[in-house]
Amino acid sequence: MFCWNEETKQAQQAVLTRPAVTASEDIAVRCKAILADVKANGDSALIAMAKKFDNRETPRLVVPVNEINQAEQALSTELKYAIDTAYANVKRFHQAQRPKDIKLSTQPGVLCELKYQAIEAVGIYVPGGSAPLPSSVIMQGVLAQLSGAATVVLATPVQGDASINPAILYAAKLCGITTIIESGGAGAIAAMAYGTESVPKVNKIFGPGNSFVTMAKQLVAQTIPGMAIDMPAGPSEVLVIADERANPEFIAADLLSQAEHGADSQVILLSNCERIIARTEQALTTQLANLSRRDTATKALANSTLILVDSITQAFTVSAEYGPEHLILQLADANPYLDQVKNAGSVFVGDYTPESAGDYASGTNHVLPTYGYSATYSSLNLLDFFRTYTVQTISKNGLRELSKAILPLAAAEGLDAHANAVSIRLEAINNER
Amino acid sequence: MFCWNEETKQAQQAVLTRPAVTASEDIAVRCKAILADVKANGDSALIAMAKKFDNRETPRLVVPVNEINQAEQALSTELKYAIDTAYANVKRFHQAQRPKDIKLSTQPGVLCELKYQAIEAVGIYVPGGSAPLPSSVIMQGVLAQLSGAATVVLATPVQGDASINPAILYAAKLCGITTIIESGGAGAIAAMAYGTESVPKVNKIFGPGNSFVTMAKQLVAQTIPGMAIDMPAGPSEVLVIADERANPEFIAADLLSQAEHGADSQVILLSNCERIIARTEQALTTQLANLSRRDTATKALANSTLILVDSITQAFTVSAEYGPEHLILQLADANPYLDQVKNAGSVFVGDYTPESAGDYASGTNHVLPTYGYSATYSSLNLLDFFRTYTVQTISKNGLRELSKAILPLAAAEGLDAHANAVSIRLEAINNER
Ligand SMILES: [Zn+2]
Ligand SMILES: [Zn+2]
Repeated sequence: MFCWNEETKQAQQAVLTRPAVTASEDIAVRCKAILADVKANGDSALIAMAKKFDNRETPRLVVPVNEINQAEQALSTELKYAIDTAYANVKRFHQAQRPKDIKLSTQPGVLCELKYQAIEAVGIYVPGGSAPLPSSVIMQGVLAQLSGAATVVLATPVQGDASINPAILYAAKLCGITTIIESGGAGAIAAMAYGTESVPKVNKIFGPGNSFVTMAKQLVAQTIPGMAIDMPAGPSEVLVIADERANPEFIAADLLSQAEHGADSQVILLSNCERIIARTEQALTTQLANLSRRDTATKALANSTLILVDSITQAFTVSAEYGPEHLILQLADANPYLDQVKNAGSVFVGDYTPESAGDYASGTNHVLPTYGYSATYSSLNLLDFFRTYTVQTISKNGLRELSKAILPLAAAEGLDAHANAVSIRLEAINNER
Repeated sequence: MFCWNEETKQAQQAVLTRPAVTASEDIAVRCKAILADVKANGDSALIAMAKKFDNRETPRLVVPVNEINQAEQALSTELKYAIDTAYANVKRFHQAQRPKDIKLSTQPGVLCELKYQAIEAVGIYVPGGSAPLPSSVIMQGVLAQLSGAATVVLATPVQGDASINPAILYAAKLCGITTIIESGGAGAIAAMAYGTESVPKVNKIFGPGNSFVTMAKQLVAQTIPGMAIDMPAGPSEVLVIADERANPEFIAADLLSQAEHGADSQVILLSNCERIIARTEQALTTQLANLSRRDTATKALANSTLILVDSITQAFTVSAEYGPEHLILQLADANPYLDQVKNAGSVFVGDYTPESAGDYASGTNHVLPTYGYSATYSSLNLLDFFRTYTVQTISKNGLRELSKAILPLAAAEGLDAHANAVSIRLEAINNER
């Protein structure tokens, strides 16, 4: 237990400092080689990588559409229901985010518009690993579907000659995705960024991944003009604020569900009650024993801290300073505090709102800013699949009036040609009379 | 003149390819040294740089508030009116962009919210150079003001012992900015990114600048967790689409007002009429002769192309491929084509809507994606000063129902603790009965 008010400012800062995450120079070098290979050799580079890294004997790149359509037959009723429900809730919440164009006259004869355009071609990466991640497909695919993007590509690795898990394929089908690429890592990112014979080139790449995927995304965003990526990636985090009446078993379960994500996960508890902290420590030990990902969670708990604060108000100050990806409020009444929430990715209010609800099915997005980026970055939302542009239409009279604002500013900024573009038109208007 | 349909695909691509913009390794090295110096030495590093680079004998860092308040006394009536009008129009257009929180139940007992939070501390950089840029203050400062950001810092260089131009100070005053730092280049970016004794640390840095400013912005965004910048910077661009009845004098004036921005500006004309292209060439020569920034504009015109296309429809296809920052439509009736606009930063419709209107006063923002980034990036808008986060509140009954979606997905993804965080709560609910 870390007693906040008994520690120096320095110790307080240290306990909230995230471990440095620096990609090795080696990863950058290997990623650059992969990008160059895929750019030059397209599909054949991807096939060679599938043989080498994924241990596949006869790799294919594209999943046939009938496999996508038939995948649901392999799902249990329960899993199909779960995917359907998660899809429906995520769709409902993100549909409400549909942007509306704006049109107004700022002064007579000067019409200004803000318009939304769906990003034309988007790529979604879904990591492989020990288990399939259908939730990752839903959290990104629904948004691409709602945006109306003309091209949506999903890339995900397979292990050995196994095909892609039917839960992934079914989630993709619900999202209307018909282009699924069996390819992972930096190669998959490169394929979507440059395009290959089989893989359409996209403008923006979304999705989490290992350090190769993260590095490849950064490299293509830095080197290909017009290419964008979703947000900076970092280890996952949870911060729980719990009062004296909170249930330590619930707190421990929430901390562990964050800890099992990865050994680099950060979990923090802030409470104004020593007893709650002590009991949470006990509950952590008990619950940990039964987890299949016990080793991972144990490692993550080593980076993690249970902090005693003076008051719940102080807990919110500390939380704002940390800026957690997930913020769980196990409070008798969180309402008076909700305006004090700052720099959080997603907030879970009350004893019966575990983080796993947001990870899977409540409807909010589980792609969230981590590593302190919640001070400036948004949780993934529908607007990430759109861009805005403006349109202005000025009448002759509108320009005559507006020239009184344009001409002195152009003169002050020393831009003659800017002034000239207006004066030459005013002359034409005057000559018409 | 480049006849689009008589050229190979390769030549077509080549004519639309922007010159490579690669920051020299030298600039990166020098910027890193400046960042480290400011981080370590704060104000004294800034003062040393002001002496060295800005040639100032007794540099001060912060403009006293009374100087900001009194600046308008030094302005002509015309310039004050121009700044007032530009401010009012930009404010009107961006006020309409104010985001609204979203709140809905995705299923009974599962309440989801999307909330907007102003980015707490923002920095605005306004470049120095040969003339003051009050429009740059307005285009960024109004948005910071409308967002309600708690801290707004404006940094701009001064030359010699001159003080900051009153037009800059007055524009800042209208935008409610009280912290103005007399510092430029990479040092100013570093000061806002790390904070110094005089300069508040910010979370997001906006504004254009030279290659040092651009590099410093990239470096702080890459190295400081949570730090964000506005958008990738590149040379400015205009693409004009003109039909056979367009006025070549207007076209030339618009091309030149882009060309005078910098020697690396790109200007492109697309027309379906050979005569219009020939007359525009003549008008360019005549108008160029009288410009004070003639040398700059002449260099820019060297990178630029007048292109003959088959039809206005084809012009829109070529424009979408290029993705211009500014798109000017000098067409008898642009309406039938507006749905074909793609990948443009800001669009100027009709013969009486010059680019300079948008640069200064129509109300739209003049900070726009360049260098092909208009495929994925937005014109600067009010949401760039906000971030979104989500909140979910689930009732006991809500969780019981939602568990049917969470538990099978957690099982499929092999995440026991995620399932446990739900089951442990369901048990508690059942025990209550
Ligand atoms: Zn989770
Ligand atoms: Zn301009």
